[in-house]
Amino acid sequence: MHIREAALRTPSGSMAERKTIDFQTEPSRYRHWRIEIDGNVASLVMDVDPSGGLAPDYELKLNSYDLGVDIELNDAVQRLRFEHPEVRAVVIKSGKDNVFCAGANIRMLGKSTHQQKVNFCKFTNETRLAIEDASANSGQAYLAAVNGSCAGGGYELALATDHIMLIDDRRSTVSLPETPLLAVLPGTGGLTRVTDKRKVRRDRADFFCSTEEGIRGAKAVEWKLVDEAVPPSKWQDAVKARASEIASRSDRPKDARGIALTPLKRTIEDSSVSYSHVDVEIDRDKSIAAIMVRAPTAAVPGSAQAAHELGASFWPLAMARELEDAILHLRTNEPAINLVVFKTEGDPRSVLAHDEFLLGANSDWLMREIRHYLKRVFKRLDVTPKSMMALIEPGSCFAGTLAELAFAADRSAMLIGTREGDNRTPATITLGQANFGPYPMGNGLTRLETRFLGDADALRTAKDRVGTPLEADDALDLGLVTFAYEDFDWDDELRVMTEERASFSPDALTGMEANLRFAGPETMETKIFGRLTAWQNWIFQRPNAIGEQGALKLYGTGVKPTFNKERV
Amino acid sequence: MHIREAALRTPSGSMAERKTIDFQTEPSRYRHWRIEIDGNVASLVMDVDPSGGLAPDYELKLNSYDLGVDIELNDAVQRLRFEHPEVRAVVIKSGKDNVFCAGANIRMLGKSTHQQKVNFCKFTNETRLAIEDASANSGQAYLAAVNGSCAGGGYELALATDHIMLIDDRRSTVSLPETPLLAVLPGTGGLTRVTDKRKVRRDRADFFCSTEEGIRGAKAVEWKLVDEAVPPSKWQDAVKARASEIASRSDRPKDARGIALTPLKRTIEDSSVSYSHVDVEIDRDKSIAAIMVRAPTAAVPGSAQAAHELGASFWPLAMARELEDAILHLRTNEPAINLVVFKTEGDPRSVLAHDEFLLGANSDWLMREIRHYLKRVFKRLDVTPKSMMALIEPGSCFAGTLAELAFAADRSAMLIGTREGDNRTPATITLGQANFGPYPMGNGLTRLETRFLGDADALRTAKDRVGTPLEADDALDLGLVTFAYEDFDWDDELRVMTEERASFSPDALTGMEANLRFAGPETMETKIFGRLTAWQNWIFQRPNAIGEQGALKLYGTGVKPTFNKERV
Repeated sequence: MHIREAALRTPSGSMAERKTIDFQTEPSRYRHWRIEIDGNVASLVMDVDPSGGLAPDYELKLNSYDLGVDIELNDAVQRLRFEHPEVRAVVIKSGKDNVFCAGANIRMLGKSTHQQKVNFCKFTNETRLAIEDASANSGQAYLAAVNGSCAGGGYELALATDHIMLIDDRRSTVSLPETPLLAVLPGTGGLTRVTDKRKVRRDRADFFCSTEEGIRGAKAVEWKLVDEAVPPSKWQDAVKARASEIASRSDRPKDARGIALTPLKRTIEDSSVSYSHVDVEIDRDKSIAAIMVRAPTAAVPGSAQAAHELGASFWPLAMARELEDAILHLRTNEPAINLVVFKTEGDPRSVLAHDEFLLGANSDWLMREIRHYLKRVFKRLDVTPKSMMALIEPGSCFAGTLAELAFAADRSAMLIGTREGDNRTPATITLGQANFGPYPMGNGLTRLETRFLGDADALRTAKDRVGTPLEADDALDLGLVTFAYEDFDWDDELRVMTEERASFSPDALTGMEANLRFAGPETMETKIFGRLTAWQNWIFQRPNAIGEQGALKLYGTGVKPTFNKERV
Repeated sequence: MHIREAALRTPSGSMAERKTIDFQTEPSRYRHWRIEIDGNVASLVMDVDPSGGLAPDYELKLNSYDLGVDIELNDAVQRLRFEHPEVRAVVIKSGKDNVFCAGANIRMLGKSTHQQKVNFCKFTNETRLAIEDASANSGQAYLAAVNGSCAGGGYELALATDHIMLIDDRRSTVSLPETPLLAVLPGTGGLTRVTDKRKVRRDRADFFCSTEEGIRGAKAVEWKLVDEAVPPSKWQDAVKARASEIASRSDRPKDARGIALTPLKRTIEDSSVSYSHVDVEIDRDKSIAAIMVRAPTAAVPGSAQAAHELGASFWPLAMARELEDAILHLRTNEPAINLVVFKTEGDPRSVLAHDEFLLGANSDWLMREIRHYLKRVFKRLDVTPKSMMALIEPGSCFAGTLAELAFAADRSAMLIGTREGDNRTPATITLGQANFGPYPMGNGLTRLETRFLGDADALRTAKDRVGTPLEADDALDLGLVTFAYEDFDWDDELRVMTEERASFSPDALTGMEANLRFAGPETMETKIFGRLTAWQNWIFQRPNAIGEQGALKLYGTGVKPTFNKERV
């Protein structure tokens, strides 16, 4: 984990020195995790360095974690998928004695701002969903080998795996003690996964989540909190056997070679971040960041093998990594940016050709990984607390995969015809296969299905136009863009729109967008980001948790919190 | 609306004079609504008395509303169903010129405590869902005749109807200006209904919800915000014709006679509320309220006709009204009560016999009404921000409909065997038809389906025992109760459990329960109480809304709010 000292403007516009958090890392730089590979089974060993926290004012005792620990975990999960196709099962275990993981560090939470707490929980939630995505879609299933106490976020980490083994040593327990101990919720999916994934009976879940002690052994199995309890004498063998068994069910190809996720080509300046296919321009005075994504300029690889040889420089993968880094950077390091504007540049045919190649080769493990990765990157957009607007102008390439940017945006504007003094042809949107399945949102629907919820005709009509470059009038008719403006209106309309957006309460916008973006069905994933997270964020504002007498503030001081007893 | 002055202890235990809010009213006492019946069409005319607010420090201008206005609306919706079976369509309209409804009163919101705001929104949400329930299940469909400006909560009221007509006078608009104007959300289902019920495209919804001006005429129709726009010259006729047409689709019987919802028999003391079948005992020192529900003592009516003659004194209806009033009273007037304990008393066979009668006569319009009403009352429990525990003891009658109390509870405890010195037979639970369909939760599942989510075997096994009185061991085996204790453990176990519960942060409990109670699928209804409400509650805590410089506080003063620009 790199922490750079960088100039960052505070919301009021003044300058303040603050640590910029970097989401890029690699195993040689890990301080908290080890990847140990043995044949087709990897162990992901959590061994948190107590003095390795992102900030100096807390110690990461008992395998407790902060954002930095989770950045490494996210990196490890990602590398296992791309760099280690031979791995078919991943065992999450602890490198410490008697403790699996104590969850999020409480002192860190107590000292964090509200924004930091919420952003931390969002990222850790995404990491746990990435673990589930690997189990579900990547032939790389996770299991948790819980040898020692496993509390709060520790148990939530275990919940993200497909199979939880608990050592039956009369001492090791699983627990979600947040409510009784800290006056907050298990906010990394715990409540939702207990009822919706593990199907723990709600009255038992009520007891479990309101007891500090935790539950062990046979009772944990009976209550479905874990899948098996194993005596210490059989522990090592049982974990190994279970991992092998799970590995044997994988559909990963034999003898596949991984590709290296080489360091991003990235230049960070005070108000820009530049990558090979993505540029971010930050205008703090206007609270706007523009993300420009460029189409591939290289030809489509001649074969899957050629794409493998391109590795991390293969456009869909490179673009996905850059876009993801840009989003995480804006979320974490630029909280005062209110609006993200998406632009694209390049040849739409090149985007579509890459789509065709990528989606056509879905039986290739690497292409499959890239597709699921793109899916996850787009999902990060959906839960990003910034307004998003897509600008579709001459020279742009909102086609197929890149058109998803426009459909992820809260609204879009398209220029009608050409610009005075600009020779380029009018802007177009081109739908492709990529818009009709491979990148579902968390709610299980594609962005177009969500957009046209309950209007199957509109969806069908749009699908009929796959492959046709659609100019503004067509795109408007088909419902693919929100507004279309002529050149002479464009600047004024956009200025008004962006100034207006910047004048609103950021909180109200976040709440509004968190509702409007998720029309239609809810899934466990959207329940975690909707119901659970919203309640947690509420609690993170309540004096009973964060006040001077609140539980989060007083934890570890020996002083008992004082609660306002009113039920809201 | 009655407002009684009553002694109410504040959370700290001291005494304070505070207004107790009464949810009982009747048309002759309405100050804000009129019911006008013309054949099979009723008009529900909103004509808010500006000086009729619950508190003296705001004026209810422009048909804006407070809790008192909504208590009348709730009463009207209920009476239309029970007292006016001849009504097949209900037109909500305004009794004022040029304004339909301006939504919740902003000054009232600005002066309300957090608890009051949240409780207000919950009740208004339930009322709107009751309107939808009448349209969907009662053959009494609602339509909104929007003649004048219709903003915020006003449009949310229209959204609760099946059909929205907007006068096309170049002036009347629908709008959700909460975010731009007040820095809060449309919190009475607006965001959810726009996308999920009306299926407004999300980018258009984004524009609509972030513009103060509102949308009128043809564009409102094109965007699906309303169903039709009608020129002023045709307005009266069009509304009449549409209402008649909707009425003609109803399955209500001709010539049915309504029953009178006579005033509740109720005695309110400082720490108790007593009804004919329900008693509430309030222990403020322990933060506990006990709700005792008694089985019917009268025999089952000999025929549907006989049940009609019993009217409001027919046990299922009388019990439902009393239980509902008790819950609303505890929510609103006893915020410092943390735990509600359900007890029952009487002959379980009498409960089951009434169930059989009620559910068997479902083709009778009144029996159908009572069933749906019981469903709604149980749903109020599910969203009540109190911990709920059911105590199943000798002499109790947790059977069929009353067993739903145990399944709605967060946990239950059952006494094994008999009590020393107590001749009564051991406690039993008896499942009935009532537990397998007629009272679904907001998530669309029954409470037992939610309880046994993903465990079809457990559900089937339970169903096989319908009609059999199950003692504690059986009930525990079947997963119908959480804990079973012998007599000599009972008091200690319950004391520990209730003291522990009372020691936790009420906020964390509310958040925890709001998650654990809703395992499984989400519906528009649960999204409103989950995703939307939780975000709104968060915003209701944020300085951008409620701080001294916040939009809600400064509204109407001419001073512009100052926002912290950080995005969370």
